[in-house]
Amino acid sequence: MPTFSAIRFFAKDGKTYYGDAILPHGVTDISKAKQAKVITGEISGKYSVTQQVAEIRTLLSPLALEDVKTVRCLVLNYEQHARESNMPIPKFPILFYKPVTSLSGPTSTIPIHPLAQQGEGLDYECELVAIIDKPCTDVSESEALSIGNDVSHRDWQIKHGGGQWSLGKGFDGWAPWSPGIVSSSIIQDPQNLRISTKVNGVTMQDNNTSDMIFGVAKTIAGLTTLLHGDLIFTGTPQGVGMGRKPQVWLKDGDVVEVGLEGAGTCVNKVEFMEKTVAKL
Amino acid sequence: MPTFSAIRFFAKDGKTYYGDAILPHGVTDISKAKQAKVITGEISGKYSVTQQVAEIRTLLSPLALEDVKTVRCLVLNYEQHARESNMPIPKFPILFYKPVTSLSGPTSTIPIHPLAQQGEGLDYECELVAIIDKPCTDVSESEALSIGNDVSHRDWQIKHGGGQWSLGKGFDGWAPWSPGIVSSSIIQDPQNLRISTKVNGVTMQDNNTSDMIFGVAKTIAGLTTLLHGDLIFTGTPQGVGMGRKPQVWLKDGDVVEVGLEGAGTCVNKVEFMEKTVAKL
Repeated sequence: MPTFSAIRFFAKDGKTYYGDAILPHGVTDISKAKQAKVITGEISGKYSVTQQVAEIRTLLSPLALEDVKTVRCLVLNYEQHARESNMPIPKFPILFYKPVTSLSGPTSTIPIHPLAQQGEGLDYECELVAIIDKPCTDVSESEALSIGNDVSHRDWQIKHGGGQWSLGKGFDGWAPWSPGIVSSSIIQDPQNLRISTKVNGVTMQDNNTSDMIFGVAKTIAGLTTLLHGDLIFTGTPQGVGMGRKPQVWLKDGDVVEVGLEGAGTCVNKVEFMEKTVAKL
Repeated sequence: MPTFSAIRFFAKDGKTYYGDAILPHGVTDISKAKQAKVITGEISGKYSVTQQVAEIRTLLSPLALEDVKTVRCLVLNYEQHARESNMPIPKFPILFYKPVTSLSGPTSTIPIHPLAQQGEGLDYECELVAIIDKPCTDVSESEALSIGNDVSHRDWQIKHGGGQWSLGKGFDGWAPWSPGIVSSSIIQDPQNLRISTKVNGVTMQDNNTSDMIFGVAKTIAGLTTLLHGDLIFTGTPQGVGMGRKPQVWLKDGDVVEVGLEGAGTCVNKVEFMEKTVAKL
């Protein structure tokens, strides 16, 4: 994994590149980058940062869908969020999986499947995302990091899935993530970062990763082998729509912005889709 | 996907091949094959079946770990199993995911992580496995099929995972599967196949896929896009260890055999591992 701010982007010259984001002095939000040094080679293997500068048109997730093996997600991993959910502090990490088809880019639309437009409970969750570099059964403290949004539908998550959250959190495009991947040489303490969500510009979550119960990656690495390109969404802090009084649900056209200090923001618009593909 | 019985194997000549299993007249259990016609090319793309015959030493899963994208599993998908579990018949498919690291071969050892040796509840589940051929948001009736074992630890599944089954079903090597993949041109009706489990030679599950509540693959394909190489474990029939009176749990050294009519058997030995990798 590069020891810098790795991005993938459509450039103004019409091509897609990997790059090292060029940020103005004092700016740390990768999504504000307008230019990048082009990276050649395999970003997950042998690569080199060139002096060629490309103009960014659209940021993509730094890892293409086919480069990600498994998306793990932790639940109730912030103390204050466990309290707002009226749940006990977990003794072990609570884990579920999203399919890779739920991944999408930092500025992609969040497509809402017709079935997920019914009932109540379309919700946002800003999460620090840990990126696994090498296959491992154990992980050191320092990992590459990014930001993502664990989009959920609470009715589908809790009422229709037989208690399993796979349906309600696994729809296509329900894990927009990462304007860029930031290595541990840039962010040295992942457990002291501001993390937040805004909906239509209004702050809904604003907390710090210091409230996390289980630290990044290493807590679950001993249970199953992690592979290169695995992602771990490490849970969300307090302030989700379900925990508010009254509850707040996302609507068609809402703009959701999730941000992590030092990593930047994902800004995604909710779009109710007309096409019915479900065959239930 | 080939329209025959696709296998992957270590041959007696020391090489690994893809092949079309050669079965004696009247034999349908792929795991009994001693020889195969060698397949060249990409089994998931362009390939050809040659006239070269190779001698099989050990059968491997036909898809290598890196060829599988996502492992979906259905739960409570047999009527009589829902009844033995004292659960209502589900209205929607109940879905969870196993990581690809849980996959292992049809004769591999099932490694039991030290943490999973504690408490009670090591259990077997024979399951028809559907293999997705082409990326799709919908799936036709006919798919390639195989057999697998959804190994579980009931304490970890139910008590320690906060209600999510990922930990208790997701340990490394807990989804041994497939002596071979059988195409729909060989098995024409996937909903009328005998499916069974034996533990140390004693029959524990013996049912028919006609008892399935939701038919193969197509029931969940409308909810999320399925990709080439995705696997769907379609649930287990009655007779699991948890549902028996008294309950029966797997022990170190037990041999578990799961079988599907027309597809063959996986025979896997349970092995308690000494090494502790967990960091909890």
